[in-house]
Amino acid sequence: MAINYPTKKTSYQKATSTSRRGMILEDDINLSNEYYLANNIAIIHKKPTPIVVVDVDYPSRNKAVITKAFYKTPSTTDYNGVYRGYYIDFEAKETTSKTSFPLKNFHEHQISHLKSIIEHGGIGFLIICFKEYGEVYLVELDLVLKYHDLNLRKSIPYEEIKEKSYLIKDGYNPRLDYLKCVDEIIKKRF
Amino acid sequence: MAINYPTKKTSYQKATSTSRRGMILEDDINLSNEYYLANNIAIIHKKPTPIVVVDVDYPSRNKAVITKAFYKTPSTTDYNGVYRGYYIDFEAKETTSKTSFPLKNFHEHQISHLKSIIEHGGIGFLIICFKEYGEVYLVELDLVLKYHDLNLRKSIPYEEIKEKSYLIKDGYNPRLDYLKCVDEIIKKRF
Repeated sequence: MAINYPTKKTSYQKATSTSRRGMILEDDINLSNEYYLANNIAIIHKKPTPIVVVDVDYPSRNKAVITKAFYKTPSTTDYNGVYRGYYIDFEAKETTSKTSFPLKNFHEHQISHLKSIIEHGGIGFLIICFKEYGEVYLVELDLVLKYHDLNLRKSIPYEEIKEKSYLIKDGYNPRLDYLKCVDEIIKKRF
Repeated sequence: MAINYPTKKTSYQKATSTSRRGMILEDDINLSNEYYLANNIAIIHKKPTPIVVVDVDYPSRNKAVITKAFYKTPSTTDYNGVYRGYYIDFEAKETTSKTSFPLKNFHEHQISHLKSIIEHGGIGFLIICFKEYGEVYLVELDLVLKYHDLNLRKSIPYEEIKEKSYLIKDGYNPRLDYLKCVDEIIKKRF
């Protein structure tokens, strides 16, 4: 299925100490992953955006130019890799809401994908950013499933995320040290 | 870096019992991964081909058409996922040579990526298909590095792959049961 994909990023605004307005979560995660890679801490990459190529031109012998293509719905999450021998898999999303995180931000199959990952011994989770508070959380799947499966409501309350999830330390390098939270999960689960 | 990427597959020819001529390795691996997924054996996916999007048109409100884009050199291998709690990562390539597998089929950074994967406790390997013999092997990185690092020669002799690697069982479903060979690696290494 071809879908409409956001291609333009919001313009970069000056961030205040308590807000992530204008900061792009994806960029911060990518930079953190580069830091982890460069320092031999973990190998975690963002998967390329899936694209269906329809037409390709060859203006010269060694060059291929795609002239028609469509974005495709991803069948998995955006990030995966290996850390301390564990398979890591997650999706990251941000919200401007101050009260809750809307579950429609995740595709249905991303939730079931993460469920399977955990069943197979991997570490699957979500990274959720509340832009207005300048807070980024590592949220375990249990909390998402509580609202998702029971169909209680279409969003997870901010207060419950704050209480039950891991606040990710925001710093210079790595920007978002989410593997510190993964260490806590490993300590608890394995 | 934009590179010229093969986009046209060879036409599908009738395969004889001793040859894989016309059979496409990538398709067989994808079908095997679908089988593993459907039977809850493992979660292994092919990563999308990385593409740099230059121009996008919006002919209607909910539709994005990419009108100019380029293929990019992948920074990792094509396949990864989780099996029995282990992180799995590999690249697959085929050759029409009867005597050796040319190492130029792998990007330099794919080799170093697999090296890191193993250092971090993951299971990284190569799947190599000799089309003329109808044989597909799971090749461990050690054998590749022997020829790669020592610069002995630019290809791995067929006879040595045959002797030191795992022949992957070719069947109906899964088409290529490469996880059986991964079981052997786990038994040996962990």
